Amino acid sequence: MGGDHAPESVLDGLEIAAERHPQARFLLVGDEARLQPLLARRPRAAKACTIRHAPASIPGDMKPTAALRVRHSSMRIAIDAVAGGEAAGVVSAGNTGALMALGKIVVKTLPEIDRPALAAIGPSARGDVVLLDLGANIVCDARNLLEFAVMGDAFARAVLGLTAPKIGLLNVGSEELKGDDRVRLAAEMLRDSILAPNFHGFVEGHDITAGTVDVVVTDGFTGNVALKTGEGAFKLVGSLLKQVFTSSWTAKLGYLLARPALDRLREWMDPRRYNGAVLIGLNGVVVKSHGGTDALGFAHAVDVAMDMVTHRFTDRIREGLATLPPRGKAAEATPAGLGVAETGATP
Amino acid sequence: MGGDHAPESVLDGLEIAAERHPQARFLLVGDEARLQPLLARRPRAAKACTIRHAPASIPGDMKPTAALRVRHSSMRIAIDAVAGGEAAGVVSAGNTGALMALGKIVVKTLPEIDRPALAAIGPSARGDVVLLDLGANIVCDARNLLEFAVMGDAFARAVLGLTAPKIGLLNVGSEELKGDDRVRLAAEMLRDSILAPNFHGFVEGHDITAGTVDVVVTDGFTGNVALKTGEGAFKLVGSLLKQVFTSSWTAKLGYLLARPALDRLREWMDPRRYNGAVLIGLNGVVVKSHGGTDALGFAHAVDVAMDMVTHRFTDRIREGLATLPPRGKAAEATPAGLGVAETGATP
Repeated sequence: MGGDHAPESVLDGLEIAAERHPQARFLLVGDEARLQPLLARRPRAAKACTIRHAPASIPGDMKPTAALRVRHSSMRIAIDAVAGGEAAGVVSAGNTGALMALGKIVVKTLPEIDRPALAAIGPSARGDVVLLDLGANIVCDARNLLEFAVMGDAFARAVLGLTAPKIGLLNVGSEELKGDDRVRLAAEMLRDSILAPNFHGFVEGHDITAGTVDVVVTDGFTGNVALKTGEGAFKLVGSLLKQVFTSSWTAKLGYLLARPALDRLREWMDPRRYNGAVLIGLNGVVVKSHGGTDALGFAHAVDVAMDMVTHRFTDRIREGLATLPPRGKAAEATPAGLGVAETGATP
Repeated sequence: MGGDHAPESVLDGLEIAAERHPQARFLLVGDEARLQPLLARRPRAAKACTIRHAPASIPGDMKPTAALRVRHSSMRIAIDAVAGGEAAGVVSAGNTGALMALGKIVVKTLPEIDRPALAAIGPSARGDVVLLDLGANIVCDARNLLEFAVMGDAFARAVLGLTAPKIGLLNVGSEELKGDDRVRLAAEMLRDSILAPNFHGFVEGHDITAGTVDVVVTDGFTGNVALKTGEGAFKLVGSLLKQVFTSSWTAKLGYLLARPALDRLREWMDPRRYNGAVLIGLNGVVVKSHGGTDALGFAHAVDVAMDMVTHRFTDRIREGLATLPPRGKAAEATPAGLGVAETGATP
């Protein structure tokens, strides 16, 4: 029931997903009276879906603390199905904060980690890149960043199919002394961890789209800003290109001639192809679809969830986390963000 | 003597700057034996420049602490000229960390503020946007952010010529409760300040290029990452477009037809047009040119310095800072980055 065009766009997405994943079965949770006739008109989805009625739903602007108190919301019932083992994962286009809060409380955080993180993939010059955390944890310490790296590594293996993903830690410069105490300590911990052979060191903002590494690790504040700044830059160029190609008759003709290649580019950059942020670090698969996406975007979020389920993503994370030393004094010595030493950035 | 193609690109830049600013006089500091013959071949620059010999120069990879100890470096002599009142400002394409350290120690921070910040302008859908801090201060508290806002406001008035710049505070969501304690306290302080009528509230990463506000205020870590992520995204699209327009004969022909409009777009997005980061909050004008830029880029950095000098930028900042309450208990209660309350971001 969540998202700007729900439930229609979700059902259209399921119609696509049912064709792509013929073995999958979907538990469709929401207002049965609304869903029933919509589902009847989508034959593939109808075959693959079972409706479960939910008398309530969580509005997009409800605070997480309030959302936790809504009984029998569609989001809650769907997440309960994951926690109870009935469903292998949940995909929602609804309220992000509510989904994160319900995920943590109902599906529960893996015992080996401190906090789950939000991860997603984006485009780069050398293939797709995993970025995390995207905003689940505004304040993080070095140990959190280490755990994000382990989870990002498992995510890149499961969803991108890489065997040895290169990992970078986002900073204001690539030299060892750059940044604050927190990122320097996290880098040290990564060099002492099982990820050491694939740890590239510090990366900078431009390395994300350059594809310098496969996984970019950062705190939720910086990751959220980086994600949205990159999206904003793509959007600006897109709208300027539209202006360019409608600015004159010759430009319009030029567009028509270059169109096949431009269409391939547009397809490759299509934000729908990157839809599906994953709340990782839980005892189950929880995927957040963008609320404003359409059927194709929602279907992609289902693809992401299917990848995570079929590649036993949660088990992989567990295996990685088991290799980490227990949370120790090193991490406690640097509470979130309390880095005071500074070194100049290289703008 | 600083930058990838120094001193040639600096002299070529001065040749352009001397034409644009016929009233300006330049003190060219560096190795006289190298500079003399190069200057002789550039007639406009030669007329406007006086060479001052510097027996040493600061390498690009030298640490700021070491750079401070180099006597008679070209950067030091140039900055001394500003501190001594002989020059109105300094433009350097050299070592960023060294320039910031020398700027702070020699030109000195304005007594009204805690720390200077690095600011620059970038493109948006609605005209140019000022972003600060870009990396001078990796760890900041709420009061620092308030001071950055005052300085960013003065910068936008001086360099963009705006009479009432709209100011936004970078966060992970636009709602009042988003982010950590630090940004929420900074927002509160801004609402109580002289900037209140022009304070738009929180903005997100995509608002930078959307042009939602004229000045985007953030800490040096986030600002540096945002700047470079945006640059990286533009660069990726640029290289993909190059591939598109060389992918087939029809695409090449299409490019030729759309070329006038595409060239205008490229010119508008040209990073050289945005060259010149300013270290603001000092008793003088200190501008950092990108080390990898060419003559046009360096000339733009000179334009920025000239704007700041002719619009009495330092005086404007002083006037703004004089309206702020003294650093008080509110700021002390939240040391840099020690925000512990969290609210989920909206990815």
